[in-house]
Amino acid sequence: MSSPPPLSLHPDRLLPVDPTVRDIARRLYEAVEGLPIISPHGHVDARMLLDDVPFADPATLFVTPDHYVTRLLHASGVSLGALGVGRTQLSEDDARQIWRLLCSHWPVYRGTPVRFWLESELAQIFGVQVRPSARTADDIYDTVAAKLEQPEFRPRALFDRFGISVLATTDDPCDDLSAHAALAADESFRGRVIPTFRPDRYLEPASKGWADLVDRLGKVADVDTGTYAGWAAAMENRRQYFIRHGAVSADHSHQDARTDPLEPAEAERIYAAARAGDVTAAEGDALRRHMVLEMARMSCDDGLVMTLHPAVRRGHHGPTLEEFGPDTGHDIPVPVEFTDALRPLLERFGTHPNLHLVPFTVDETVFSSEIAPLAGFYPSVYVGAPWWFLDAPDAVRRFRAAVTETAGFARTSGFIDDTRAFCSIPARHDMSRRLDSGFIAQLVAEHRLDLDEALDTAVDLVAQRPVEAFKL
Amino acid sequence: MSSPPPLSLHPDRLLPVDPTVRDIARRLYEAVEGLPIISPHGHVDARMLLDDVPFADPATLFVTPDHYVTRLLHASGVSLGALGVGRTQLSEDDARQIWRLLCSHWPVYRGTPVRFWLESELAQIFGVQVRPSARTADDIYDTVAAKLEQPEFRPRALFDRFGISVLATTDDPCDDLSAHAALAADESFRGRVIPTFRPDRYLEPASKGWADLVDRLGKVADVDTGTYAGWAAAMENRRQYFIRHGAVSADHSHQDARTDPLEPAEAERIYAAARAGDVTAAEGDALRRHMVLEMARMSCDDGLVMTLHPAVRRGHHGPTLEEFGPDTGHDIPVPVEFTDALRPLLERFGTHPNLHLVPFTVDETVFSSEIAPLAGFYPSVYVGAPWWFLDAPDAVRRFRAAVTETAGFARTSGFIDDTRAFCSIPARHDMSRRLDSGFIAQLVAEHRLDLDEALDTAVDLVAQRPVEAFKL
Amino acid sequence: MSSPPPLSLHPDRLLPVDPTVRDIARRLYEAVEGLPIISPHGHVDARMLLDDVPFADPATLFVTPDHYVTRLLHASGVSLGALGVGRTQLSEDDARQIWRLLCSHWPVYRGTPVRFWLESELAQIFGVQVRPSARTADDIYDTVAAKLEQPEFRPRALFDRFGISVLATTDDPCDDLSAHAALAADESFRGRVIPTFRPDRYLEPASKGWADLVDRLGKVADVDTGTYAGWAAAMENRRQYFIRHGAVSADHSHQDARTDPLEPAEAERIYAAARAGDVTAAEGDALRRHMVLEMARMSCDDGLVMTLHPAVRRGHHGPTLEEFGPDTGHDIPVPVEFTDALRPLLERFGTHPNLHLVPFTVDETVFSSEIAPLAGFYPSVYVGAPWWFLDAPDAVRRFRAAVTETAGFARTSGFIDDTRAFCSIPARHDMSRRLDSGFIAQLVAEHRLDLDEALDTAVDLVAQRPVEAFKL
Repeated sequence: MSSPPPLSLHPDRLLPVDPTVRDIARRLYEAVEGLPIISPHGHVDARMLLDDVPFADPATLFVTPDHYVTRLLHASGVSLGALGVGRTQLSEDDARQIWRLLCSHWPVYRGTPVRFWLESELAQIFGVQVRPSARTADDIYDTVAAKLEQPEFRPRALFDRFGISVLATTDDPCDDLSAHAALAADESFRGRVIPTFRPDRYLEPASKGWADLVDRLGKVADVDTGTYAGWAAAMENRRQYFIRHGAVSADHSHQDARTDPLEPAEAERIYAAARAGDVTAAEGDALRRHMVLEMARMSCDDGLVMTLHPAVRRGHHGPTLEEFGPDTGHDIPVPVEFTDALRPLLERFGTHPNLHLVPFTVDETVFSSEIAPLAGFYPSVYVGAPWWFLDAPDAVRRFRAAVTETAGFARTSGFIDDTRAFCSIPARHDMSRRLDSGFIAQLVAEHRLDLDEALDTAVDLVAQRPVEAFKL
Repeated sequence: MSSPPPLSLHPDRLLPVDPTVRDIARRLYEAVEGLPIISPHGHVDARMLLDDVPFADPATLFVTPDHYVTRLLHASGVSLGALGVGRTQLSEDDARQIWRLLCSHWPVYRGTPVRFWLESELAQIFGVQVRPSARTADDIYDTVAAKLEQPEFRPRALFDRFGISVLATTDDPCDDLSAHAALAADESFRGRVIPTFRPDRYLEPASKGWADLVDRLGKVADVDTGTYAGWAAAMENRRQYFIRHGAVSADHSHQDARTDPLEPAEAERIYAAARAGDVTAAEGDALRRHMVLEMARMSCDDGLVMTLHPAVRRGHHGPTLEEFGPDTGHDIPVPVEFTDALRPLLERFGTHPNLHLVPFTVDETVFSSEIAPLAGFYPSVYVGAPWWFLDAPDAVRRFRAAVTETAGFARTSGFIDDTRAFCSIPARHDMSRRLDSGFIAQLVAEHRLDLDEALDTAVDLVAQRPVEAFKL
Repeated sequence: MSSPPPLSLHPDRLLPVDPTVRDIARRLYEAVEGLPIISPHGHVDARMLLDDVPFADPATLFVTPDHYVTRLLHASGVSLGALGVGRTQLSEDDARQIWRLLCSHWPVYRGTPVRFWLESELAQIFGVQVRPSARTADDIYDTVAAKLEQPEFRPRALFDRFGISVLATTDDPCDDLSAHAALAADESFRGRVIPTFRPDRYLEPASKGWADLVDRLGKVADVDTGTYAGWAAAMENRRQYFIRHGAVSADHSHQDARTDPLEPAEAERIYAAARAGDVTAAEGDALRRHMVLEMARMSCDDGLVMTLHPAVRRGHHGPTLEEFGPDTGHDIPVPVEFTDALRPLLERFGTHPNLHLVPFTVDETVFSSEIAPLAGFYPSVYVGAPWWFLDAPDAVRRFRAAVTETAGFARTSGFIDDTRAFCSIPARHDMSRRLDSGFIAQLVAEHRLDLDEALDTAVDLVAQRPVEAFKL
């Protein structure tokens, strides 16, 4: 029986193929390859770093909680149940079985960024040298599992090894941020781990459970949230709390990006109706849009960067949502519109010196027609990096090609990894650096940019854009 | 006078230009070039193969019935009348004159896939060696016409020569499929020619003539279609009839892709109103969407693959529609939406093991944002190949780049030619094989895929994807 | 101190990088590089050429009036006031200070076409040999300012040097076109400078000031515009006036592209209401759409080419609009739809031999799905060149790739520069010629087009497309 195919990472992977362009791209990539990782938006749990408990097993680390990975297995006929989705602890047998499912379905990831990330993680972090397959699954499992028991594979050690200089988490406004506080107070951990204010659920007055949420918000903030004004005061209070714990941004993900204001009395009226559970979906949307506008006003006051991740139909498949919960692979994008949606916000605050507004989209049609023109005029608007389904080689190239000619490089946010898969962070940033190096190299090869400018731009995208856009 | 420019097909046509990528692409293409043609969706007439009558003349074969070809001539100022559109028989003078119009307008096809197809057909099937032009028109006409009289240029001989292993036609639910039956019973013909159930017209209750159609449906199915329940029963009956004659799929082309259910009583009410000719356009749409959902339910019951070709404004230019009939070049795409439109269907049947749903689009904006994410979760959803205006080199490359990173290769349908131009079938499949070879080769050259995987994928796209997606 | 980086224009800039493709592209570009410039749509002032007054200073020439340039400076934190926006005369100190702002922000233009245009202008017209920067700003200012005093840098001399064979301006229907008349009568000026009929403001009955405008229109046309019929007659009158002064086209830029007809009585009713200032926004839109349809009817009658530039939200940032006026960098695209919008117009006039309709878009999603299919059937429809935010290298490549496969080259309009920056005209046309050469060369390298056809096409795009589309 022949050896299984090797898993080897080519040093030029994702760089342009043309020899002239590749040579330039290599020079650019060399300049950024080793720079510290700045991660201003993601979903890693601060407590993981605080507790520094070893990762449980390869399946829990790579498969079960990561909807990027489970999605395509599900589409290929593997049930989410068989992948352990929704379970927090797996027996070794289950974990090994899940791992085999991943490895035996390896071909379904061909051409996807998941493949790139997983390969990078397996090879670079865990030293795996064979391609995953049914045949190699157990060996790889054993290799990774053995490593996970070693101290240098615990979260803090990896945090250092990854070269992460800033890591932002995503947190509920009512979170006491005790993990962040403890981590900041822990002299044995020198990393910068900061919370992000994510108030979405408190801005959806027509959603089930909203009234209870704002009750709780009121208690935590010690502010009466019985009125809209109280809601706003409680939000201001919690934002301050987050700022004191290091937060630099507030993130919003709603069905649309609208920011239409309501008359104060109408806002109060809908708010009261929603508290009483007597609100229509349209009223809920109207108040939410007003609330988003209010959050922009707060950003002008307190300086938190405002990020928007709109227009995804969450939990598209009801039965799966019910059985396995949210974030299980069936959030599907819908068209988005920014030009008119953001106009009320930008008319009011678009030139305010304190506002940084970073719109993200999974509907790439707006990159050239809406987001780049907005960021190409408003000093407050930064183009969000390609996100989720678009955080992938060809999509990133389309993004740069669509955005740069109108907004340049300077008006972009820098890369965000947006991941809950801790070990994928270096691979994701590496992918971004390779792709940007390739894009910029193409400009040089077409004589649209000189090499010294290209080098300066490549470094700026990694080291300065996120610092500026996210006020780090 | 100098010789006219030659018509010669370069062996590397449509392959990537970069030498590294081209070398890889050649190896992939060599592996798929000669594989049998699987054509699971198209518009060839089964009777043509049954009767095996010689093709009439070059104009009838290449121009008159093919709106891909006549479209650009019309845009260039040639009237459809002058092209014989709508006529089934042409005099030799007319045929030659039409052929001259095509040849003398050859430059208008530069950069289009029509040019590629016609060149391939003329050179590879008919041995034409000069470029079409006013000057060469008569010579080419004579060459082709002479060939058409030979037995090896009759439909069955070409079917064999083309290496077609499966050919699906498109058929009305009331069709008795006698041509299919006769062809299947004909021991001198070994090809597999299968019908496709295409019930569109029976799902448009607000359209003129609908009541007569469902009357006829009832008669053919021997079911009383006086009620909605009867309509559904008649549909089930005819689907079974089609399945017995080899059908594997049912195709739907409506203005949108919505699948909203109606209450049973409301469905019956609108149905009755429509039977009485007293229905609004909005009611007609509502019932049609309910009917599409019903067809998905039937697909779960009887296993017919469900394909969708939505969002084309048919017969955009009324005067031309009136004079020359449908399919005369002025069907124009409108925006499509799948995420919300298909949600009722997918909530109910999206994980049903019998359902295969293949959405096609001519609005390419939904490839990355809607279709790929849907196919990347639902095991029932296969990404339809680029179709109609998008069945072209650059569009196919955009398709693969937009879809693969989210859905991989495994969730795609394989190529469909969707053509009524029989002789273009090999050229269309060849184009697809060349383009996919080039796309996959690029992944190899960027070190995103190993060569053995690339070869496996290239063969899989041609030989296995359509077999799986269309249950062949 | 080292020398500042040079500003040198590489002869191959914007051509494809692959050596095979670049060689072909060079041959094509050589064939078109020196052809005369045809500019059938732009915003240069005819009076500038009539008066032939020297340009004031580098800031007024390159920065202050050009929202392409000021936009990204504003986004980078420079106020429009500091850039002199809205001022017609600058002191030398102010001009120099504005110039320094441009040069010191040079990196924000990396990757943008503005950079390409400005570099070309500075190097090719003014002989600047160093890259703009804070350090070189004063030297470059002095170099340019000194040139501007020389007779060969006055408008007419540059017009000749640029090789402009036709230049269309954009003019109000009430303009007396005296500058055009004087220029035509001036035997010392041999250029062809023609007006364009731009009636937008007269078609927006719900806009402030509309009633006064149509009063004025009536006076100028000597027609009573108290009724809709009078409005139409006045329009016809002014179109004739423009035609007599050389106009070949009428341009329209509205929020949408709709052309729905009204019943005559309803048109009169809304018209009368609007005259009385008692009209809703929806009524205003309805009448405007009817008026656009009426203008198409007039185009069939009088032969003026009809161009459409729809779907831009003008003056997005109210405070800036108020302080600095229109065209100050915050016009932001919104989605556009053509298939249904133009249907009433095309049903009526789409095959009329006198109609040439040229739709432009800044929403590139409609290139492949709507505009190309329309132009690929209707002999009246020509695909407008990529415009505004899309007049840039990567966008132009996307345009050709999206349009050509359905509409070919023959159905496109040829390049339009649409600029008010006179000195950028050669650079803009040069960019277009380079990009088209590269696109066509790629087709040759992929064996989709022969070299002789490629040469013919490249020349045709520059020399014949605009002549045909704009009836020059």
